Amino acid sequence: MKFNINNFINTSDQRSKIVDFQDLDHIDGVSISAVSAGLYKYKRDELVLFYFRDGANYASVYTQSNLISENLKWNKKIKAKKIFALLINTRNANALTGTEGYEALKKISLELSSKLTEVQKRDEDKPKQISSKEILFGCTGTIGEKFPLEKIKNSLPDLVNKIKYTQNKLIWMKAAMGIITTDLKPKLSMAETKIGSSTIKVYGIAKGSGMIYPNMATTLGYIFTDANLSSSILKDILKNNIKTTFNAISCDGDTSTNDMVSIFSTSKVNHPEIKRFSDSRLKNFNKAVHDVLLNLAKQVVSDGEGASKLISINCINCKTEKDAKNISSKIANSLLVKTAIAGEDPNWGRVAMAIGNSNLKINDQKLSISFGPYKIYHKGSLYKSYDEKKVIDYMKGQSIEIQVDIGQGIKNFKFYTMDLTKKYIEINADYRT
Amino acid sequence: MKFNINNFINTSDQRSKIVDFQDLDHIDGVSISAVSAGLYKYKRDELVLFYFRDGANYASVYTQSNLISENLKWNKKIKAKKIFALLINTRNANALTGTEGYEALKKISLELSSKLTEVQKRDEDKPKQISSKEILFGCTGTIGEKFPLEKIKNSLPDLVNKIKYTQNKLIWMKAAMGIITTDLKPKLSMAETKIGSSTIKVYGIAKGSGMIYPNMATTLGYIFTDANLSSSILKDILKNNIKTTFNAISCDGDTSTNDMVSIFSTSKVNHPEIKRFSDSRLKNFNKAVHDVLLNLAKQVVSDGEGASKLISINCINCKTEKDAKNISSKIANSLLVKTAIAGEDPNWGRVAMAIGNSNLKINDQKLSISFGPYKIYHKGSLYKSYDEKKVIDYMKGQSIEIQVDIGQGIKNFKFYTMDLTKKYIEINADYRT
Repeated sequence: MKFNINNFINTSDQRSKIVDFQDLDHIDGVSISAVSAGLYKYKRDELVLFYFRDGANYASVYTQSNLISENLKWNKKIKAKKIFALLINTRNANALTGTEGYEALKKISLELSSKLTEVQKRDEDKPKQISSKEILFGCTGTIGEKFPLEKIKNSLPDLVNKIKYTQNKLIWMKAAMGIITTDLKPKLSMAETKIGSSTIKVYGIAKGSGMIYPNMATTLGYIFTDANLSSSILKDILKNNIKTTFNAISCDGDTSTNDMVSIFSTSKVNHPEIKRFSDSRLKNFNKAVHDVLLNLAKQVVSDGEGASKLISINCINCKTEKDAKNISSKIANSLLVKTAIAGEDPNWGRVAMAIGNSNLKINDQKLSISFGPYKIYHKGSLYKSYDEKKVIDYMKGQSIEIQVDIGQGIKNFKFYTMDLTKKYIEINADYRT
Repeated sequence: MKFNINNFINTSDQRSKIVDFQDLDHIDGVSISAVSAGLYKYKRDELVLFYFRDGANYASVYTQSNLISENLKWNKKIKAKKIFALLINTRNANALTGTEGYEALKKISLELSSKLTEVQKRDEDKPKQISSKEILFGCTGTIGEKFPLEKIKNSLPDLVNKIKYTQNKLIWMKAAMGIITTDLKPKLSMAETKIGSSTIKVYGIAKGSGMIYPNMATTLGYIFTDANLSSSILKDILKNNIKTTFNAISCDGDTSTNDMVSIFSTSKVNHPEIKRFSDSRLKNFNKAVHDVLLNLAKQVVSDGEGASKLISINCINCKTEKDAKNISSKIANSLLVKTAIAGEDPNWGRVAMAIGNSNLKINDQKLSISFGPYKIYHKGSLYKSYDEKKVIDYMKGQSIEIQVDIGQGIKNFKFYTMDLTKKYIEINADYRT
């Protein structure tokens, strides 16, 4: 398996027909570099650096797993006011690597901060002494293998030399390709919005593919903006939007030791000062972040290992949003539902079965189930004008919507997943070999 | 797909190499019949009757799903002191079939009880008027399809005519084959034990394959004994043993609307009267029921849809048994673990990932992971003499044991599952078509 950026740039027909990636452009205050550190047997970029020359405010959410990787342990200890670098590596998750894995990050952060301090001295009027504690790490790949400290450390000079201070879609693509593992496509999304009359960019990249399950959903997701917002407001924005985006997707029901979604703001745009999350002038920006996160989340699901269809599960009319999420998540994680959809079989009985597994009292006399525009089961019996042939045709599409009306209240939740195909097994039975 | 009993009877090499079925023989008080009702397109038995001519004490446990089939609704209302018939059909689950599905069972039970009352008048010295409320139903198959009342009703005369009053391994096999759906093998198990000096038989049959997840685990499991025990004691015995057998297995993590395990005692053997479950003379009998249930449960997992390997997950040294079950169940239900094992890849990192998803605080410095006799991860780092080549060889076997030592207490739980193969997808993407 070889990755060639040109495959993704030049020919639009090779892009996902389900949810497309978007082209990103320059954003002030974000510098990027991506190099190979020889971590895979074949040649590809595995080391991606985001360098914030003037620092960035930031916020992160991490996996809810109880066994977390060494880089997440590192990140959780970071108390810096501003972050100056985010270093991401693939191939090795640095999880279950113990003290040795943690010490490796310490060494890399010391080396990288010293190299970046040299860059500051070379480039900046008021050079900043960058500390190892102003660096975050993203790691993804195999769990439990020795972390390749030497290879990564030896690649740092090359990585720092190749920092690009002006971005274009090619550089963003290189970064997005540099963080993937079994993903088949890079994941990039963007929005432009306003705070006051100032135009603000919201850019994001992600990687997904396996171990995609709330809560946290993707393995890695990074959002960059040139807005001028405090870390505390960024935290509120991230929390507010993660629930219905990265925490509303599932590929295989497994949660990684390494999940991480972060947002960085470089404060390069002058706009009216925003002091709190509730400020109404933040509404459009908040929506832009939501759109970028949701778009990335859908790209992750559409490119879930072996996926051939994107499935949206809309559970409506529950007593609480939690109930609606619980039910839609049970449907999204049912192997029997996911395999039926892979087989383009409108087997709504399996959807009913999954609803029954939600631990909520369901009244079948109030329950309705639709696939796309087609009502199938309606309050206790098959819908009178249900025509299976039409639904079989509908199942041939690449985007399948299932709606479940519980008939107990007014709360809704939409969950996204993919179908489960033989390809998934193929990828995961042979991942390391 | 055609089933031929001779394939299973005559050539032992066609039996599962993982967990074999056993041959059953005559048991007093149990009469059996199995016929085709034309429910499948090809010819096979789909209707199996267990007739207890002198009645049977009984106990059942049912699915924990919140959407249950119409036959379970029926069974839960039965208050009879003794049961005279258990009627099982395949092909149609009678779930999400509403009032019509329930009324169908009413009609069938009236017809069957009347037919069996005629049989009583013909055969018995003191004929019993059998009531429709002394009949239990087991249903399995597709959810949400119209229940085939007419076909089943029309087959009742044939079914009753063909009742066999003396059993042998062929008749048991016919019954076990008559209740399966996508199972590749019939599931039968037996034990002989003693209460006092009297020899007691414990026979069981089951069907499984898909939607196998606690709690309840199998779709259908039925135990028959000639012991003389009250329904209340049977209930205690079933509850006592279900936790570590049918509720300790998982194939695909889905729970059916129809799960049902029952035990019937015909009281044909004279043995010292047992008044309570705690009676020490019941110890061997209790163990025999456990052995039969566990053997059937293992047969269900070994024949799980697409299974090529039986996986035992032994979680040891937890604070509570619940914790141990929680962790072992997370491992057993991880698609990434199950696909890695299908690929014969000792990817213990995925086991660690699954442990992290258990919602329990795990200390990686106390955690150890072994595959078979091979220690891999030991208290914070790779085990010093870990040799991956040996474990790769071990993974080629048909029975894989994973042991996880949490190092927090003294409680253990063993969970059984299967690997996840392309065959699973094949079966479930094409189930109805």
